[in-house]
Amino acid sequence: MGPHPAVAAIRLAVRRVLHDVLNELNEDIPGAAPSCGCSTAAPGPDDRPLVLVACSGGADSMALASALAFEAPKLAVRAGAVTVDHGLQAGSDLRAAEVAGRLTAMGLDPVESVAVTVGRAGGPEAAARDARYAALDEAAQRHGAAAVLLGHTRDDQAETVLLGLARGSGIRSLSGMAAVSGAGRRYRRPFLRLDRQTARKACLVQHLPVWDDPMNADPAYTRSRLRHEGLPALEKALGKGVVEALARTAQLSRDDADALDAWAAQADETVRDDAGLLECAKLYALPPAVRRRVLRRALVAAGSPAGSLFARHVEEVERLIVGWRGQKPLNLPGRVEARRQGGRLVIRQG
Amino acid sequence: MGPHPAVAAIRLAVRRVLHDVLNELNEDIPGAAPSCGCSTAAPGPDDRPLVLVACSGGADSMALASALAFEAPKLAVRAGAVTVDHGLQAGSDLRAAEVAGRLTAMGLDPVESVAVTVGRAGGPEAAARDARYAALDEAAQRHGAAAVLLGHTRDDQAETVLLGLARGSGIRSLSGMAAVSGAGRRYRRPFLRLDRQTARKACLVQHLPVWDDPMNADPAYTRSRLRHEGLPALEKALGKGVVEALARTAQLSRDDADALDAWAAQADETVRDDAGLLECAKLYALPPAVRRRVLRRALVAAGSPAGSLFARHVEEVERLIVGWRGQKPLNLPGRVEARRQGGRLVIRQG
Repeated sequence: MGPHPAVAAIRLAVRRVLHDVLNELNEDIPGAAPSCGCSTAAPGPDDRPLVLVACSGGADSMALASALAFEAPKLAVRAGAVTVDHGLQAGSDLRAAEVAGRLTAMGLDPVESVAVTVGRAGGPEAAARDARYAALDEAAQRHGAAAVLLGHTRDDQAETVLLGLARGSGIRSLSGMAAVSGAGRRYRRPFLRLDRQTARKACLVQHLPVWDDPMNADPAYTRSRLRHEGLPALEKALGKGVVEALARTAQLSRDDADALDAWAAQADETVRDDAGLLECAKLYALPPAVRRRVLRRALVAAGSPAGSLFARHVEEVERLIVGWRGQKPLNLPGRVEARRQGGRLVIRQG
Repeated sequence: MGPHPAVAAIRLAVRRVLHDVLNELNEDIPGAAPSCGCSTAAPGPDDRPLVLVACSGGADSMALASALAFEAPKLAVRAGAVTVDHGLQAGSDLRAAEVAGRLTAMGLDPVESVAVTVGRAGGPEAAARDARYAALDEAAQRHGAAAVLLGHTRDDQAETVLLGLARGSGIRSLSGMAAVSGAGRRYRRPFLRLDRQTARKACLVQHLPVWDDPMNADPAYTRSRLRHEGLPALEKALGKGVVEALARTAQLSRDDADALDAWAAQADETVRDDAGLLECAKLYALPPAVRRRVLRRALVAAGSPAGSLFARHVEEVERLIVGWRGQKPLNLPGRVEARRQGGRLVIRQG
């Protein structure tokens, strides 16, 4: 008798990602053993690649850790784990130690508990995330990990799309989390097409104790309100397929945004004069979606911080092209100035 | 003292659209009077262009009708109205007659009440919409109207984006309603950037009686559930800017979808061999977002009905290109078959 369907599902998801990671390692290393396995010397145990799982102790990442512990040995991969203590609740250090104990009991090695200091920049959720990823980056580098697995599920993805939608800043912010991200394709999200319920069920049938982070239920946090009120209300109005539809929207939006960014990068080279200045007539001839991306690139390149540059700024600059009536120079975030001069768009930092 | 801000807002929105319509009429008619107004003979009253408003008697379209009645004479435009009796409620004919009376009292002429028979295709909302637009098309043609104004507000747009999101079929379905649509750019939506509250307020201060369609509050309808439950819950979770963010998403998505469609149309010409067959190697080299659009175009051109062709169908065909492992021919909606043969993708109707 095979494993419970939920356990089979989480293992399959992790196996696929481990295969991807191993294939990419083989492609990257010049002279590496070919995938036919006909190398002359078997690698020693220390040569095995290490894959880490980031584990909060919640159901999603505990399920992920259990699947990694099961699959990694079969593929000659070392499996380790990092749990981050955000220090935001009393006793969080004990909690982290307990999670680390559970991970060690699963056979993961190394297992690390890393304490971080959460700042305030960008709000509580963003600050916690920044601190967490910095700690994961550091741990991955220190251990020379080939990849770090993250337990985000399809439900998390749906929430992320809605959060992006609320910004109203276009399809890039609708594209949610990538299956692969970070420097050197470090972060992998094997559960992005799996629902939260499956991860929870897999923990249950494997008798894995899980910890429900009270932050996840705290209505002070946007994501928590979305999870417990916004998304259920949307499902009630639109039907049960909403989460899946949002996750699919993420993937489609990501591909679309990538294609348009590529177009803009290419267009950028064709709309400049010999001095490298943007020519208004050539910008005018581009489709609006491409023109705005070319302008955005130029503003960021001139020093305008991407995070402070909103759609309305770009649209204002666009009006120098499509609605020219002798406007004054525009002042943009990062002390960047844009003005039209002699049929050229001059963008520079003051 | 000027009009109430809400009244000023609805009038400005209508004035802008009337200007657009008149400009386009001038561009279209060879030898038409130049916009400087220096024509030798003033046009007779019958030569004035006619603009119709589609009016249900609800606040949005009553506000729209009042603004059209005010602005049209100043621009030498005739203003008329059509109200559609869907026949879905007892006494709807009397209601339509009452609305027509109010429109006539505003000075609109012609005013027509058109009774339609609502079918069942596509569900109650889609069937009512199809019947309504057919009646509006017919009335516009019969009267030779230059445009038909529709009262959709920014709130309607936000709801439409969420309905599209629930389909999960990509950015085209996120792009909501266009400011200009229909054959010959017939339909115009002057209130797409105005909120419902402004339209309601404008009716109130102008003492216009409005009719609240009970269908709008009936939880049997998806849009009604979205309006009264889904969207408020989303606003509670994400903040008050959600409606505006959704409307902005619509505009950005529309521009992006247009640009990608244009790219796909262009790419289509470069990926075919001399016999007009799609070459797999060339399709492979396209960005996924463009490749899928080229494939979708080819499938629809071969006879697959656009409405039955889902993202998963296109993805299956895509796997003949990017995941080729000797798959069998695929059967697609509309008896269309897709198969890979000799490095070509052969798509034909059986």
